[in-house]
Amino acid sequence: MTITYLDHISANPLLSEVKSAMIRAIEADYGNPSSQHTPGERAAAVLEEARRSVAGLLNCSDPKEIVFTSGGTESINHAIKGIALAHGGKGKHIVTSNVEHNAVIRSIKRLQPLGYTVTSIGVDPHGRVNPKDVADAIRNDTILVSIMHSNNEVGTLQPVEEIAEITKKRRVFFHTDAVDSVGVVPVDVQKLGADLISFASNPFGGPTGVGGLFIRRGTRIFPLLDGGIQENNRRAGTENLIGIVGMSVAATLAQENMAARVAQYRSLRDLLLRELPNSIDEYFVNGHPEHVLPNLVSISIRYIEGESVVLMLDDEKIAVSTRSACATGSLRTSHVLQSIGREYADAQGTLIISLGIQTRQEDIHRFLSALRGVVQTLRDISPLYKKANRGS
Amino acid sequence: MTITYLDHISANPLLSEVKSAMIRAIEADYGNPSSQHTPGERAAAVLEEARRSVAGLLNCSDPKEIVFTSGGTESINHAIKGIALAHGGKGKHIVTSNVEHNAVIRSIKRLQPLGYTVTSIGVDPHGRVNPKDVADAIRNDTILVSIMHSNNEVGTLQPVEEIAEITKKRRVFFHTDAVDSVGVVPVDVQKLGADLISFASNPFGGPTGVGGLFIRRGTRIFPLLDGGIQENNRRAGTENLIGIVGMSVAATLAQENMAARVAQYRSLRDLLLRELPNSIDEYFVNGHPEHVLPNLVSISIRYIEGESVVLMLDDEKIAVSTRSACATGSLRTSHVLQSIGREYADAQGTLIISLGIQTRQEDIHRFLSALRGVVQTLRDISPLYKKANRGS
Repeated sequence: MTITYLDHISANPLLSEVKSAMIRAIEADYGNPSSQHTPGERAAAVLEEARRSVAGLLNCSDPKEIVFTSGGTESINHAIKGIALAHGGKGKHIVTSNVEHNAVIRSIKRLQPLGYTVTSIGVDPHGRVNPKDVADAIRNDTILVSIMHSNNEVGTLQPVEEIAEITKKRRVFFHTDAVDSVGVVPVDVQKLGADLISFASNPFGGPTGVGGLFIRRGTRIFPLLDGGIQENNRRAGTENLIGIVGMSVAATLAQENMAARVAQYRSLRDLLLRELPNSIDEYFVNGHPEHVLPNLVSISIRYIEGESVVLMLDDEKIAVSTRSACATGSLRTSHVLQSIGREYADAQGTLIISLGIQTRQEDIHRFLSALRGVVQTLRDISPLYKKANRGS
Repeated sequence: MTITYLDHISANPLLSEVKSAMIRAIEADYGNPSSQHTPGERAAAVLEEARRSVAGLLNCSDPKEIVFTSGGTESINHAIKGIALAHGGKGKHIVTSNVEHNAVIRSIKRLQPLGYTVTSIGVDPHGRVNPKDVADAIRNDTILVSIMHSNNEVGTLQPVEEIAEITKKRRVFFHTDAVDSVGVVPVDVQKLGADLISFASNPFGGPTGVGGLFIRRGTRIFPLLDGGIQENNRRAGTENLIGIVGMSVAATLAQENMAARVAQYRSLRDLLLRELPNSIDEYFVNGHPEHVLPNLVSISIRYIEGESVVLMLDDEKIAVSTRSACATGSLRTSHVLQSIGREYADAQGTLIISLGIQTRQEDIHRFLSALRGVVQTLRDISPLYKKANRGS
């Protein structure tokens, strides 16, 4: 039996076209894109072709606005630390939200001993930031606002365009962590208005360990990786050309197939949410009902532990996750679920079901049927469940 | 006609075993090593197996001492900035040398607005640091010494073990940029004594964009990439598993074949240096005659420009370089050649010939024969050459 894989937020399988392109790149033995001879020029041509594909996905006016990185985390660190250090003379205040990825939270935290301060704004019970709160948080010494495009745990999409209007008016840089959005839902830098956009290749079927940072033309920023003059002097280090080739093919496919993929995700997500009450009861659906990633469903199931569900579903060859893979092993409750007001006990029972391009209706049905049994088994041994149902 | 490729310092072709392993990894569709289900566990097992191979190459006592990175530049930035920021409370002085890679020089420079100061020590005409100069430069507020293991432009190996003894005695952290040494010449962390060692996978036949940082057990250091808890909490971001698999196979092969490869490099290097006077005259050999990388020859040819030689040799399908690929496009003279006392004009005529595992005697002969013609052509049109030889 093959695996029913519903954990695409942690890792997406590579698209077959991406695999072929990467294998061709491995066999081609490209030189160093910075070398002056023919093998170097060939490598440089491949690199710039890839930059154009990725710039196309984001609708950049200039491919040079794309800097290739080792993934979403590097892009986020680059954006936040690079802007903060380059503009620290103007001010040292940063505005962010309570539901950001740890890469954002910890990048900002790293700056605090250097005199930077942060205002972190709350979200509504759907996980959404109110743009007015961003406007209110901006001070004279604010240099940067970092609000994510979509949340990796509950899927909520933030009102990024409205925030961009505010930051533009207030002359503050705006970074958005769009790691789980770019290549999944339309992200158009012309409409979006953010100055910096972090993204990664894996969410749209490219390899892990590869990503990019959109830096709007004219934005002064320090590199995170200092050294050579690669990436138009913005990111030192010889490029991961094989990975970049993979990302570039995935970007082209994402651009071409965006509408069809989103439609498919939506229909599978609707199916899942519609059928869920027939499998289990006493659960919450996390995230915004409308402004939400089409490929992610987060539910908090009462009286049980999400980790147990993950392991028992794994025994039935079904892969889902209970929290961000980046936070696995951490014992603390998800800060995102806390921020939307989930009680500790309910947050423990959270499952993230994330869809991929290969996901089909059968996968949803298999998951729902297995989930019913697993939840029942766990509740049968749950003292919390017994206690709660004693009175009824 | 195939290319005679003698620019391995810029980019090494992938070893065939590395290619096969990477292609298998692409086809295997590993999950996210941080996920809790079976696909995640499989990915985690592959990752830890790779960590053991790489730790073996460096003779680490614990594989956890290896942190995977996106390459030498990231490793160097991580080591320098991570130690400086973690120990800035103790002192803010850093000791380095005048011949370091730009990743070292610019990482330190980036720290200066934060109050860090640097003492950069000179080298002898062979490009070698005197350990006594390191000892003299260490002050009470020194926290870090960063001296490279081998120089990427002239090949000189530094007296790293003697420097490590000094730093140990003075309780100062010691980082060595061993990007062009690890996997090429023996680098044993037990003998070497450095606290931090930066390396990359490509110099020993693995892919570009992948590397590692050895962090000796017990060394307190901040991450450069903040975020998730990957890499034992030392480097956030989902790993580039395909690249890491490639590096791991290359590391195993490097460990097994080190002696034979070094012997082959030495014999080809000796051949090149022995035959060179039969091809050209009026040149300097840069670097130390004995303490030098076996796979690199740097020569400064008088009265001509290295860049012209590179382009003319390229027309004859021979690839060499004139300077570090990371500095291509920069108009300044190499700081390394300046440091060893080369005049501006002579430094302009520098060629770096770097050997790989596939290099054969025929490649050396082809290069020597082509070089003779190119140098003669260039000197025939060189006003400098005419002027210098008018008197004779």
